[in-house]
Amino acid sequence: MTRPANDTFLRALLREPVEYTPIWLMRQAGRYLPEYNETRRRAGSFLNLCKNPHLACEVTLQPLARFELDAAILFSDILTVPDAMGLGLYFAEGEGPKFERPLRDEWEIRDLTAPDPNVHLRYVMDAVAEIRRALNNTLPLIGFSGSPWTLACYMVEGGSSSDYRTVKTMLYDRPDLLHRILDVTTTAVISYLNAQIESGAQAVMIFDSWGGALSHAAYREFSLNYMERIIAGLKRSHGGERVPSILFTKGGGQWLEAIAATGCDAVGLDWTTDLGEARQRVGDRVALQGNLDPMVLFTSPEKVAVEARRVLDSYGSETGHIFNLGHGISQFTPPENVAALVHAVHSHSRRGS
Amino acid sequence: MTRPANDTFLRALLREPVEYTPIWLMRQAGRYLPEYNETRRRAGSFLNLCKNPHLACEVTLQPLARFELDAAILFSDILTVPDAMGLGLYFAEGEGPKFERPLRDEWEIRDLTAPDPNVHLRYVMDAVAEIRRALNNTLPLIGFSGSPWTLACYMVEGGSSSDYRTVKTMLYDRPDLLHRILDVTTTAVISYLNAQIESGAQAVMIFDSWGGALSHAAYREFSLNYMERIIAGLKRSHGGERVPSILFTKGGGQWLEAIAATGCDAVGLDWTTDLGEARQRVGDRVALQGNLDPMVLFTSPEKVAVEARRVLDSYGSETGHIFNLGHGISQFTPPENVAALVHAVHSHSRRGS
Repeated sequence: MTRPANDTFLRALLREPVEYTPIWLMRQAGRYLPEYNETRRRAGSFLNLCKNPHLACEVTLQPLARFELDAAILFSDILTVPDAMGLGLYFAEGEGPKFERPLRDEWEIRDLTAPDPNVHLRYVMDAVAEIRRALNNTLPLIGFSGSPWTLACYMVEGGSSSDYRTVKTMLYDRPDLLHRILDVTTTAVISYLNAQIESGAQAVMIFDSWGGALSHAAYREFSLNYMERIIAGLKRSHGGERVPSILFTKGGGQWLEAIAATGCDAVGLDWTTDLGEARQRVGDRVALQGNLDPMVLFTSPEKVAVEARRVLDSYGSETGHIFNLGHGISQFTPPENVAALVHAVHSHSRRGS
Repeated sequence: MTRPANDTFLRALLREPVEYTPIWLMRQAGRYLPEYNETRRRAGSFLNLCKNPHLACEVTLQPLARFELDAAILFSDILTVPDAMGLGLYFAEGEGPKFERPLRDEWEIRDLTAPDPNVHLRYVMDAVAEIRRALNNTLPLIGFSGSPWTLACYMVEGGSSSDYRTVKTMLYDRPDLLHRILDVTTTAVISYLNAQIESGAQAVMIFDSWGGALSHAAYREFSLNYMERIIAGLKRSHGGERVPSILFTKGGGQWLEAIAATGCDAVGLDWTTDLGEARQRVGDRVALQGNLDPMVLFTSPEKVAVEARRVLDSYGSETGHIFNLGHGISQFTPPENVAALVHAVHSHSRRGS
């Protein structure tokens, strides 16, 4: 195995020298692209799209045809693992993800088992393999999973929540039950990500979307500790190449040092953290990924370029920066502003220019 | 004027010695209390309740009759100031606050003027005076306002928002217009809080509920700078007594040092920040208020006591701590758990016990 023709993203993750700052965008294959909406329409539903490797491959490649992005990311949903555990994922129109059978009863929690990713999540592995073939070693492919805490939020609440009341009541009242869910989910995520790596993912990212809702102490006990176990359980290399890992806790800027100490290769940051200060706090232990406010993409190409430069300049000229948004791209984003962003990041960061 | 019989809260704010850690709760007069719902029913609507000084006084006192809280806080809404500016505040059932005339057009923004609080917000001043008479100098009364940025979010979006798209597009695209809104609103908040002080408020708090949605740089430019101007414009004392100020940015833990440098007397913290670390970061410049996760109140009196002790112990035994939640109390909170919280905070923190 060799590195892809454009391996800038992988080099930045490993803090090796790069010619320019690589960029990809969280949710880059998504509803802001008309061609995505067209494929989704053909699929019939979001879940059909996720579960059809051929269509998942098609939408994964769509943003790469439009923009000079430096990485592809598997098109999938973060809730595939609990779905494979039997909770029954579904999407009510305009309401976000829900589970038919949320975890509430003690016996259900005791009975929870980790699925075999090569059986119950075969469609994901098939998509990874198909995307790798389609990419033909031009660009690296990122695999991903939700963090155990974030998955547990959905599994216990049964959907998204504004205050996490049900799962937090369990956390404070019956921490043993929540730890049981997190333990099984951690085992599941480790084998899920390793199966993605074996199927061809060249880097992996853990999305801890709701870690920022936890108290300082609870974050360590119920989210970070489990992510650290995942990092320790991941295959570090495949086919002779290192497979770097990225850990992203939305709202986790205060806990950056602890996140960087988990053994991950890179930390994702939202826009509330200054990249230069973050660099000073973590030294050269990890690469940093981020962190433009996605709302900047609602202005104009000129303003997008100004704000992109601001983010690049806040990081400085060292290697170890992967440009991204601080959160997933909004479905209402005008695609021409994404083109302006990619261009601005590449041209402003080109070394020696 | 003399300090109230129980001035523990004021002493803690000024980092003077106290016998125990004082406690009050954000939104302590609210929907979790059956007697509040009864008064609100009589008022006909939430807005009628806010605008009737007699009923506002009644609900302000309700939690004090049930729990041994160490401060009263004016019952009002954070959006009274933009309402007095003519934006037309209303509450659609189950939908939160909205404005009939959100700020969108440049001419509307240029025409914006600060209201005279003693004319257009007379009902608030009357409520403050009536609450002070009713309290009869037993407990201190806290006045409050929303921060300019938080008010601007509602004024531009026209209601609450999940992504602040409209106001952030203005921020990045037409910062001059947003600065104009913030400038007028800052002038309005200064005179509003000073009028509350003259009417009898013995401490004031600024709620920056949405400051945490801003980027690191934008927070300073569009929220913190204006709050600093408010602090500088506040009457420092009234009737010979210091009137301390509290500044609370939800999600602002990363920016604690900058917040503490505004000249405020105390900083409110949500539950994501460890109080002991916060104390080390700010030294003895400010008192700290917070920071129990409101979801702890959904467990049992025993668990509430355990978590309350954890927060007290994280702060340590020095003065300068005011116990509170890290956010407003949930409407679904069982009142008996609030009683357990108040009792636990007082008994565990009593000096020499």
